Amino acid sequence: RTFIRGMQTVTLIPGDGIGPEISSSVMKIFEASKAPIQWEERNVTAIQGPGGKWMIPPDAKESMDRNKIGLKGPLKTPIAAGHPSMNLLLRKTFDLYANVRPCVSIEGYKTPYTDVDLVTIRENTEGEYSGIEHVIVDGVVQSIKLITEQASQRIADYAFEYARNNQRASVTAVHKANIMRMSDGLFLRKCREAAEKHKDVKFTEMYLDTVCLNMVQDPTQFDVLVMPNLYGDILSDLCAGLIGGLGVTPSGNIGANGVAIFESVHGTAPDIAGKDMANPTALLLSAVMMLRHMGLHGHAKKIETACFDTIRDKKVTSTSKRQTFISFESSDNCAFCTLRFS
Amino acid sequence: RTFIRGMQTVTLIPGDGIGPEISSSVMKIFEASKAPIQWEERNVTAIQGPGGKWMIPPDAKESMDRNKIGLKGPLKTPIAAGHPSMNLLLRKTFDLYANVRPCVSIEGYKTPYTDVDLVTIRENTEGEYSGIEHVIVDGVVQSIKLITEQASQRIADYAFEYARNNQRASVTAVHKANIMRMSDGLFLRKCREAAEKHKDVKFTEMYLDTVCLNMVQDPTQFDVLVMPNLYGDILSDLCAGLIGGLGVTPSGNIGANGVAIFESVHGTAPDIAGKDMANPTALLLSAVMMLRHMGLHGHAKKIETACFDTIRDKKVTSTSKRQTFISFESSDNCAFCTLRFS
Ligand SMILES: CC(C)[C@H](C(=O)O)[C@@H](O)C(=O)O
Ligand SMILES: CC(C)[C@H](C(=O)O)[C@@H](O)C(=O)O
Repeated sequence: RTFIRGMQTVTLIPGDGIGPEISSSVMKIFEASKAPIQWEERNVTAIQGPGGKWMIPPDAKESMDRNKIGLKGPLKTPIAAGHPSMNLLLRKTFDLYANVRPCVSIEGYKTPYTDVDLVTIRENTEGEYSGIEHVIVDGVVQSIKLITEQASQRIADYAFEYARNNQRASVTAVHKANIMRMSDGLFLRKCREAAEKHKDVKFTEMYLDTVCLNMVQDPTQFDVLVMPNLYGDILSDLCAGLIGGLGVTPSGNIGANGVAIFESVHGTAPDIAGKDMANPTALLLSAVMMLRHMGLHGHAKKIETACFDTIRDKKVTSTSKRQTFISFESSDNCAFCTLRFS
Repeated sequence: RTFIRGMQTVTLIPGDGIGPEISSSVMKIFEASKAPIQWEERNVTAIQGPGGKWMIPPDAKESMDRNKIGLKGPLKTPIAAGHPSMNLLLRKTFDLYANVRPCVSIEGYKTPYTDVDLVTIRENTEGEYSGIEHVIVDGVVQSIKLITEQASQRIADYAFEYARNNQRASVTAVHKANIMRMSDGLFLRKCREAAEKHKDVKFTEMYLDTVCLNMVQDPTQFDVLVMPNLYGDILSDLCAGLIGGLGVTPSGNIGANGVAIFESVHGTAPDIAGKDMANPTALLLSAVMMLRHMGLHGHAKKIETACFDTIRDKKVTSTSKRQTFISFESSDNCAFCTLRFS
């Protein structure tokens, strides 16, 4: 590994299936735009450590610990019986407590909605994902939803700080505290406390079912939404659907101590892998989120604008119908890749 | 109470706020269409029994137990500290284990979606609604999601029987068994077993997050969906949103031994109560569901058609902009009410 002056190193996890080719598109675009990022490629697919415990390979863990920032393509998972979900393992290994998904309508990519511009912030470590379940008696099972003060406070504070740092006007806490009075009640209380600390940001509370109903009727009423784990799983996918699906939606997983992994949340699409048909938009926009997280706002804006312009203008090179042209200042600064929108 | 030959008696729970006026519209329409229903009005608002336990007033309980079928408007709830949610109390009192919500696009009532025609079937008694919660240590709370073999099997069987009886081609089980392996796993297993017993109906399984994403992208791919309690709470509201909201979506709560309560699931709208502005469509379509449940298919079709025709043709009487004209065979068979669509 060589250090280049002015460059920051990011751990790149290309992933499986279409992962390598969309990663390569992102690298080409970053190079053309002169973004000051150098990549350190790692494979994170879990291996079995001593005692049979599944873990991230040490060199990948070490790279992430050192660089703090990662960009990740899709992973085939689970790869074997007993193999854990890689998403869950990564969240756990790096304590990635906040899953952040900005959902913004893309000009030139038609869906039933326009002007969507919201961000879902999902608690990523506990709740319904505790993994604690029991058979009480034959035919009676319980799953435990675990809500802690500490994790609720951390995500609530994160949501308000995100809103403030990103010039967002309001935060809505999404809950079912009318049913889960103690657990969602605790979560909601921590959101109210965070709201007290951030009076510059408007705070509202809404039942999850009401959010879903209102969301499909008029998503433009929402801004930043914060919620427990499972509700975030649902709402983040619902909102991705509003703007065109997982193929165009960026995602970031934020951890403690500056660690963060940005990722496309779509699948590995093995059927089209290696055919230069995969659309790197979700990974590219995740990389843009990454640049913003690193404070490289100018570079983020430049790539984001080029990406959205390309989609809006449906730019395709004449030589190949597949290849899309992403251009920056001069014709020397351009990258070819596939941005496919049906 | 007088018995009229050929008439069936239904317990009518007008409810609060706009409840009485929309109930009265439904009664007028039923009379104009000559539907063979006589109404027995009851107030179900919970009272405190001996020992302080909240319960349905005995005369309302007795009426429902005798008539088996109820039609219910919105209820103001909870009315006092410690007062239970009336919805939850009714589900519990009458063991209303299945919540059924057909969501069908309405011609003349524009939303971003057309041709929606699906039914959500929600397990209504357990899951996240167990009400069992504990503080483990200070700042750590757990809520228990309870899934039983018996309740899962009952709802799964109900879904397939509903599909068969209503000429529906497929049932989709909605779950997160990748995360809640034991609880949602049990629910899913029971759905698979029910599918084995009903080979004439197509069966698919889908993660809740994927359903939400696909739903907002193309709801026409779905037919009957069956799911645990909380997922049903969410999805039924989301789907109502697709076709125009709770003001136009009917709902039925099905219990054991033929008991069933049909209801509009919107609120009491105190701001417009008593002003003859409330739209009775949700309650009217719930009453149509009720007629079908009672086997009165001809009467159901007649009222449903009149309702949809009225909406499609935007029929409004000349004398009052507010009054809508619902007509049946002759001009003697008509009812005036308010069907308001912005
Ligand atoms: C793959 C699965 C474990 C995961 C989840 O349920 O969280 C996924 O849906 C997500 O949103 O990242
Ligand atoms: C009012 C509330 C208790 C209820 C629920 O959460 O089930 C409502 O949202 C519903 O869907 O009937």
